[in-house]
Amino acid sequence: MTSSVLPVAPTRGRLRPLGLDEVRITGGFWARRRHTNTTATLDHCRDWMDRVGWTGNFRAAVEGRIHRDRRGREFADSEVYKLLEAMAWEAANGGGAPLDAEISALTELVAPAQEPDGYLSTAFGRPGQPARYSDLEEGHELYCQGHLVQAGVAQARARGEGELAKIAQRAADHVCATFGPGGIEAVCGHPQIESALVELARLTGRRRYLDQAALFVDRRGHGTLAEGEFGRAYFQDDLPVRRATVLRGHAVRALYLAAGAVDVAVETGDDDLLAAVVRQWEATTARRTYLTGGMGSHHRDESFGADFVLPPDRAYSETCAGVASVMLGWRLLLATGEPRFADLVERTLFNVVATSPSEDGRSFFYANTLHRRHRGVVPPADVDSPRADSGLRAPWFAVSCCPTNVARTLAQLPAYLATADDEGVQLHQYADADIATSLTGGRGVALRVRTDYPSGGSVTVRIGRSPAGPWTLSLRVPQWAAGAMASLVDPDGVHRPVAPGTATVTRVFRPGDEIRLELPVAPRWIRAEPRIDAVRGTVAVQRGPLVYCAESVDLPDGHEVDAIRVDTSVDPEDGPGATDASAGTVVVAGEVAVPTGDGDAAWPYEALGHPAPRPADPTGIVLVPYHSWANRGPSTMRVWLPTAEENRPEEPDTGTGTDTDTGIGTGR
Amino acid sequence: MTSSVLPVAPTRGRLRPLGLDEVRITGGFWARRRHTNTTATLDHCRDWMDRVGWTGNFRAAVEGRIHRDRRGREFADSEVYKLLEAMAWEAANGGGAPLDAEISALTELVAPAQEPDGYLSTAFGRPGQPARYSDLEEGHELYCQGHLVQAGVAQARARGEGELAKIAQRAADHVCATFGPGGIEAVCGHPQIESALVELARLTGRRRYLDQAALFVDRRGHGTLAEGEFGRAYFQDDLPVRRATVLRGHAVRALYLAAGAVDVAVETGDDDLLAAVVRQWEATTARRTYLTGGMGSHHRDESFGADFVLPPDRAYSETCAGVASVMLGWRLLLATGEPRFADLVERTLFNVVATSPSEDGRSFFYANTLHRRHRGVVPPADVDSPRADSGLRAPWFAVSCCPTNVARTLAQLPAYLATADDEGVQLHQYADADIATSLTGGRGVALRVRTDYPSGGSVTVRIGRSPAGPWTLSLRVPQWAAGAMASLVDPDGVHRPVAPGTATVTRVFRPGDEIRLELPVAPRWIRAEPRIDAVRGTVAVQRGPLVYCAESVDLPDGHEVDAIRVDTSVDPEDGPGATDASAGTVVVAGEVAVPTGDGDAAWPYEALGHPAPRPADPTGIVLVPYHSWANRGPSTMRVWLPTAEENRPEEPDTGTGTDTDTGIGTGR
Repeated sequence: MTSSVLPVAPTRGRLRPLGLDEVRITGGFWARRRHTNTTATLDHCRDWMDRVGWTGNFRAAVEGRIHRDRRGREFADSEVYKLLEAMAWEAANGGGAPLDAEISALTELVAPAQEPDGYLSTAFGRPGQPARYSDLEEGHELYCQGHLVQAGVAQARARGEGELAKIAQRAADHVCATFGPGGIEAVCGHPQIESALVELARLTGRRRYLDQAALFVDRRGHGTLAEGEFGRAYFQDDLPVRRATVLRGHAVRALYLAAGAVDVAVETGDDDLLAAVVRQWEATTARRTYLTGGMGSHHRDESFGADFVLPPDRAYSETCAGVASVMLGWRLLLATGEPRFADLVERTLFNVVATSPSEDGRSFFYANTLHRRHRGVVPPADVDSPRADSGLRAPWFAVSCCPTNVARTLAQLPAYLATADDEGVQLHQYADADIATSLTGGRGVALRVRTDYPSGGSVTVRIGRSPAGPWTLSLRVPQWAAGAMASLVDPDGVHRPVAPGTATVTRVFRPGDEIRLELPVAPRWIRAEPRIDAVRGTVAVQRGPLVYCAESVDLPDGHEVDAIRVDTSVDPEDGPGATDASAGTVVVAGEVAVPTGDGDAAWPYEALGHPAPRPADPTGIVLVPYHSWANRGPSTMRVWLPTAEENRPEEPDTGTGTDTDTGIGTGR
Repeated sequence: MTSSVLPVAPTRGRLRPLGLDEVRITGGFWARRRHTNTTATLDHCRDWMDRVGWTGNFRAAVEGRIHRDRRGREFADSEVYKLLEAMAWEAANGGGAPLDAEISALTELVAPAQEPDGYLSTAFGRPGQPARYSDLEEGHELYCQGHLVQAGVAQARARGEGELAKIAQRAADHVCATFGPGGIEAVCGHPQIESALVELARLTGRRRYLDQAALFVDRRGHGTLAEGEFGRAYFQDDLPVRRATVLRGHAVRALYLAAGAVDVAVETGDDDLLAAVVRQWEATTARRTYLTGGMGSHHRDESFGADFVLPPDRAYSETCAGVASVMLGWRLLLATGEPRFADLVERTLFNVVATSPSEDGRSFFYANTLHRRHRGVVPPADVDSPRADSGLRAPWFAVSCCPTNVARTLAQLPAYLATADDEGVQLHQYADADIATSLTGGRGVALRVRTDYPSGGSVTVRIGRSPAGPWTLSLRVPQWAAGAMASLVDPDGVHRPVAPGTATVTRVFRPGDEIRLELPVAPRWIRAEPRIDAVRGTVAVQRGPLVYCAESVDLPDGHEVDAIRVDTSVDPEDGPGATDASAGTVVVAGEVAVPTGDGDAAWPYEALGHPAPRPADPTGIVLVPYHSWANRGPSTMRVWLPTAEENRPEEPDTGTGTDTDTGIGTGR
């Protein structure tokens, strides 16, 4: 392995990840997002955690007043650790000394709260608090310590061994001693510790952590957790991981568990376990995923719904489930090399992870609905907001897992762009980037990627340095390009059509050689499979990997998005600013009218009539990238747009008369 | 007033209700349901409450061990009271002495638990329990005591003043003393006490109870309750009743409050308050009600969703919300005389209230989904079941409000059939019934109604006894008959068409005269208004007031309902047993196929293609009444059926080639 600055560092697998010291994002969509992350979001998270007392919990624990003074939910500690993780990766990305100082300060706050045996929680175990591990279902103690371990690993990899890594390892040792063979035979209600322990095993080479992670994965699904209000599937404790056929229950829990199971499978060479997770990913992608890549539709328990239950207006699609899906997809990509995993990672990054933060990086969507029917109210700037409301981004939540999760994902994003193997280099995600790594045998390779993706579809890879012999440059051709023409231009200027999957160029490269991938990003109508009942009779628009939406601020005054009917006989076209990935528009043909004439029927169901004609004089309706919605004040929004071909009511039968002369009348 | 055996006995209003001693249901759909209620459901509820310890709570309270031994949720007392109420009405309906004995036995259990000041709760106020009224948001103390008052009123009206009525009045006095002027200035998180207190005022003539009810109605909406996880709208504490424009929050709470507000408005002559509730009912009916009459779509907080958010597969449509909607509709009908309220009562009775209990009256739906995507598992016979699962009816729930609510509704059902006023008699619901009452001035009227409604549309009213002068017989013509031909046949055999609303015959009637109403019950396709996004591109079938559904047990082996596509160019027809209201079928044209060919696409969204033709060779698909589903074992079910006109995927573009000779290849 040439780099150690790796968010995920498997010792086996089809592809070798590149580190944050090997890939630098230099411009474009993600560079802007990352700039906002470092300059605004990290500070924002720290300020809020100080304000709401979550950082203060550690001090209160040390000072013996935690039973009285603790603030936040049982998992508040984890937000501090996730922020530490984000800071560590950003420090490696160029954040440097100022972030190191922040990390040190936070570490000094956390350290004294660790108990002599390594246990660390501000919510359990001290006088006046519930006993350690007395509420495995909802206590989140292993979850929190897992995030601590993850932060320690990040600190060690990004900045070299330090105090945080030591705290993390002590906590991991405590977990292994307590839950290992002969210890408590149970699991945490919220998976997370699994992947953290594997990463610590990778960092330290200590098998103990891997064994403990494997034990947690194998233990789950045997009903060790009490069946709560939502049933055991909520914690994935209904079925062993190897026997499950689809992700179910709480979406973030399910995805974290799957990611941890891949980590265990890869390190232990457990192909059956890996195959089980791939099967679950396949079924989940085919039947339980929104067009945006979002996962988890139920508000009640933040869970996956049944197959094909994907209502846009009740989409939960939690930001953290998007983050977790990216984690899982990345691990599966490294393990298998299959581009379908990178396809979903791309979709989820652009349409879930990028949707959550506001343009200024200081407010967030917790849930990412695909249809907002009434305008939201501006969330308060100084108190936390309800998590499930999706009208406008809010600065903070009582359950505020999403802001720090977005922050740590953006911080490690450069590592998701490319990999290497014995044959060469693979590009999975497209952004302006400089990449420098070594192929087998220390053969140095340097690439410069330049693109206006996702606004434009042209990706140019310029060879900066190349070893003497032939090697292979692989480029992912996204599945969204199916049905349109993608092409690859080799250094000799020869164009070749390429189909979705992986396009490769194998040759002797020279410095200055350019390879160009041309992807068909023109906007296109998208339909859903008929069993997704909630969007029957509607279409969506995608342009490259970006899902688009209609937002009321772009409609004539006083109209809301539910008045839109689109005419799919006319293809969508680029609109004003189409080449701006942050705000580029698409225009579709349609009409904007109050759907049922003047006001409401008293009863919204009636006998079937005849289809209405297409609108005689369609107008242009402007759509914007979904990730950009709700940045212009309260609005209504929808991704899935009804088509104009609808059944309309029959003319009312007015042939019934009254005849009061005979004493028979009708009245109301 | 000629009868005292009245569930609701307003002293003012457009129509005068008839008592359970004036209307007897003699046969047909509701007679069968009522027979099951008296012979099975009442015993079933009593047995379960003994088994799960809810009746035992009263004894535990008296014996000083309630802090240790209490069973059930904080509102468990109310189920005992609702059962007492049901027993009282059934006793008046012919249940007689055996039920009187049951009522006495339960009353003897409850009585000693009442404290000297009238307070009665097994969940609060005793040593080791939370203090009285320390959790108004979720404690349900006034809710429970309200149901006690309601039971006492039923006992007094149905069987004459007795011990239960005295207990109830003492509790009501305690409530007035505690929450009246100068007392606690707050309301209960779950409205119910309002209508109970008005009914007690009507029974006793004591203004104090009415004033207290009015105070509770006026206090609500001023934020006296703490804002919990679901916000103040959950308890309708977000807006004063008179200012609200639509029902919102927890559906049962919202509807109980609205019913209580009507009671207060009627008794105090407060037309503004009445108009406010009518406005809310109108908006709720037009925008927030399922085709079945079901209300409340959200599982998370059992609440109404936003306007037009009515997903069939995530329909909560709680049985108790159906019961509460019937309560509200009946009160509005009495106050205004407008048949639209009886229309919704009918729809809700046949499609929600009648759907909840199984054929044997010993298991129940708590939620009434309109689309079941996977077969349920048979609920355990001996332990309570999760309430929100709607796959099969369950014998009991941890929150088991629905069985006793169905029982008390069926017990008082005869009173909902007809009313009287100065001009004559009004028939609102159609069933075989004998009706005997007196018009103004003691002029006796007797009617015999014979019908096979809702299977058939013919309703014959035979005059048994009639005063000398002319009077008016009014018959509701249901709104569902709009667009088809209904007719009225007078005693001279003259046919006249009648439109939805009220059809009247004013004349001198003689014993033996017959009036016949002919309603067009032939099955018909129903569409939803386009803003109900969740059912776009689908149709439903209604036959008379009955909503129909497809159930997998009627499909070819191995097929589920999601394979159905119907052809709306062919009208639905009566199928086998169509004249049996409990099981009569309808046949529609369509196809039953796996919707997307063999198996799943890896990704369920794709570029838009062209519409598929209608099925070339449609087959007949059998539908059954919605209320009858899930009586034949686990099944899948849907009310809204996709139409065959759908956009199909474009043929995949296979025009992309590979050319490995040049070193450029595509692979996956």
